[in-house]
Amino acid sequence: MLYETFEKIYSLEAAGKKITKLNVGEPDWRPPIAAIKAAQNALSKGKDKYGSSYGELTLREKLAQLHGCSAKNIVITPGSKWGVYSLLRLHLSAGDNAVVFSPHWSAYSLMCQSFGTEARLVNLKMENGWKPDLCALASAIDSKTKMLVLNSPCNPTSAAFSEGDERKIIEIVRDRGVTVLSDDAYRGLLFEKRKDRLLEENLLIANTFSKTFGMTGWRIGYAVVPEEIAKKMVSLNQITFTNVPLFIQAGAEKALEDKEKFAAKVRKLCVQRAGIATKKLRGHFEFSKPEAGFYLFPKLPDEIDTMKFLDRMLDSGFAMVPGGAFGDFGQHFRVSLCREKETISIACDTMVETLEGFC
Amino acid sequence: MLYETFEKIYSLEAAGKKITKLNVGEPDWRPPIAAIKAAQNALSKGKDKYGSSYGELTLREKLAQLHGCSAKNIVITPGSKWGVYSLLRLHLSAGDNAVVFSPHWSAYSLMCQSFGTEARLVNLKMENGWKPDLCALASAIDSKTKMLVLNSPCNPTSAAFSEGDERKIIEIVRDRGVTVLSDDAYRGLLFEKRKDRLLEENLLIANTFSKTFGMTGWRIGYAVVPEEIAKKMVSLNQITFTNVPLFIQAGAEKALEDKEKFAAKVRKLCVQRAGIATKKLRGHFEFSKPEAGFYLFPKLPDEIDTMKFLDRMLDSGFAMVPGGAFGDFGQHFRVSLCREKETISIACDTMVETLEGFC
Repeated sequence: MLYETFEKIYSLEAAGKKITKLNVGEPDWRPPIAAIKAAQNALSKGKDKYGSSYGELTLREKLAQLHGCSAKNIVITPGSKWGVYSLLRLHLSAGDNAVVFSPHWSAYSLMCQSFGTEARLVNLKMENGWKPDLCALASAIDSKTKMLVLNSPCNPTSAAFSEGDERKIIEIVRDRGVTVLSDDAYRGLLFEKRKDRLLEENLLIANTFSKTFGMTGWRIGYAVVPEEIAKKMVSLNQITFTNVPLFIQAGAEKALEDKEKFAAKVRKLCVQRAGIATKKLRGHFEFSKPEAGFYLFPKLPDEIDTMKFLDRMLDSGFAMVPGGAFGDFGQHFRVSLCREKETISIACDTMVETLEGFC
Repeated sequence: MLYETFEKIYSLEAAGKKITKLNVGEPDWRPPIAAIKAAQNALSKGKDKYGSSYGELTLREKLAQLHGCSAKNIVITPGSKWGVYSLLRLHLSAGDNAVVFSPHWSAYSLMCQSFGTEARLVNLKMENGWKPDLCALASAIDSKTKMLVLNSPCNPTSAAFSEGDERKIIEIVRDRGVTVLSDDAYRGLLFEKRKDRLLEENLLIANTFSKTFGMTGWRIGYAVVPEEIAKKMVSLNQITFTNVPLFIQAGAEKALEDKEKFAAKVRKLCVQRAGIATKKLRGHFEFSKPEAGFYLFPKLPDEIDTMKFLDRMLDSGFAMVPGGAFGDFGQHFRVSLCREKETISIACDTMVETLEGFC
């Protein structure tokens, strides 16, 4: 449903309709200028031939430092999406399941489905601030559970589990012999900064340059995994995409140099935007206080049809995603606040007016 | 074995050893300068956000013209490798098989293996100029055969089936209800030029910008397939790599503008290089006359151990790939002639000297 929405909007745009895409989880900020220049220079210098399916050693060494491990534990991937996909694929066989907290990024379910496996959803509650339900987690795990996807901060809710809760989850799951796959795409955009996650036993990490650095379309991320799993990922990389282009890796390596400063700047921007939307929408829609990134996941009153609401919003030129794309949350919708403050303000006003139009 | 060789050499290089990599199927020519500039400009202009998982419409329209079809039949992929991988994956279920003429690019076998399927090899003979064995093909097909991989021109032999033979193959296979997947990576480098393959019933095409345009590390190719299959490919793209970066697509689109002239130039270069190597090696090694691209696949005398021969060549600074990486052809080795004429000349002299050193 998520991707169908995207393709529908690409078609509308190709037909000339002007749409403000609050549906896409895509920063509107540019990547660091130095990263763009580094990629351009690398292209000029002919760094555009085949490379190792592990990724470039210099880049992997820098990433290893952040995650308290060796370069042998780092594999460069086309986005964290490929990290998640390949790690699920390497751990799940037909009939197995992966436990996933929901609301959740629909790609997890689609990936599991594509392997003949189950994404076993543990539904969380907005009333509890989307905090993890540890009892439900423990009950969901069975002998066929091979993986738990830790999606904190969460797309679409922008809720983050506390470090204490994350620790409890990792331990519950480890005791049951299940591997944790932490999708850290939004970790760099936590409103209260945390350090990069360290590699530890039974924990795999997928991360990306997309969100923090605004490098979505560069398609570069990385996995932090034990050496043996890195080798398996590389074998899969070799028969699929080969390697992330070297000039893209050169840009990413440059971006890392300025990581702290750049991240602080965009984090501040995210906080401001979330503040504006929260103020405008509060009292009209129910939603939890965002703790990271750029999504809100508001709930519509029960009597309102979500698809009709979103269609009216699309008529007004704003695209958003129905909550059904993120699990059993059909009464919600996801709005991405990756626009200028004025646009966010107008979009929120339009949401409120559209809502009132139903009454 | 192919990819192990590559990673081993990347390590040796990282340790400072100077190696002439005649192992990699990688043109030494630069992409069209206009393509590099187009990619750099696109980066400057912020064409670095998410795009359609089909690929950019303008690029797909240009490719559709070449292949006698609609843009709806074109899907942009990270290399032809992803085209081959995803099309095999979409057509084969566990227990199925794909028939492949061998010697063959080892990725086909590794891909099939990764799905729990079989790459059923039809071994061809150097004495017959690696021409297709149609009887063996017919016998290889059974009720579990879902696909035939048409690898002409062939990596590693650089032999090409005649257009008449290709037609016969397509018809034999179609009558048996099997889909042909044509890997056209080297078609643009046929010494006797043929037009791009047209889309037709029961035929799928994977192609790439890598070889003709020297854009290996850009990771961009495309598939030419019926609309329904394009949709399925897009669904897989959406949950794996999302899209080939838009700035890379912009470069590829620019490269196409000068395709005929550029291809003619590099084709001429390939013919010259093949001529030099053929002249130097003839009488010392057995091999078939190359008809495309930049490989030779010479056979060593029976009494010589291929791995020892290749190790001695590596000691002399030349990396090549053992024939065992391409099927049941352990007495052969693959040499890639993607170097200056002088280097090819020295490499061939070294091969002859190394061979004589065994006697």
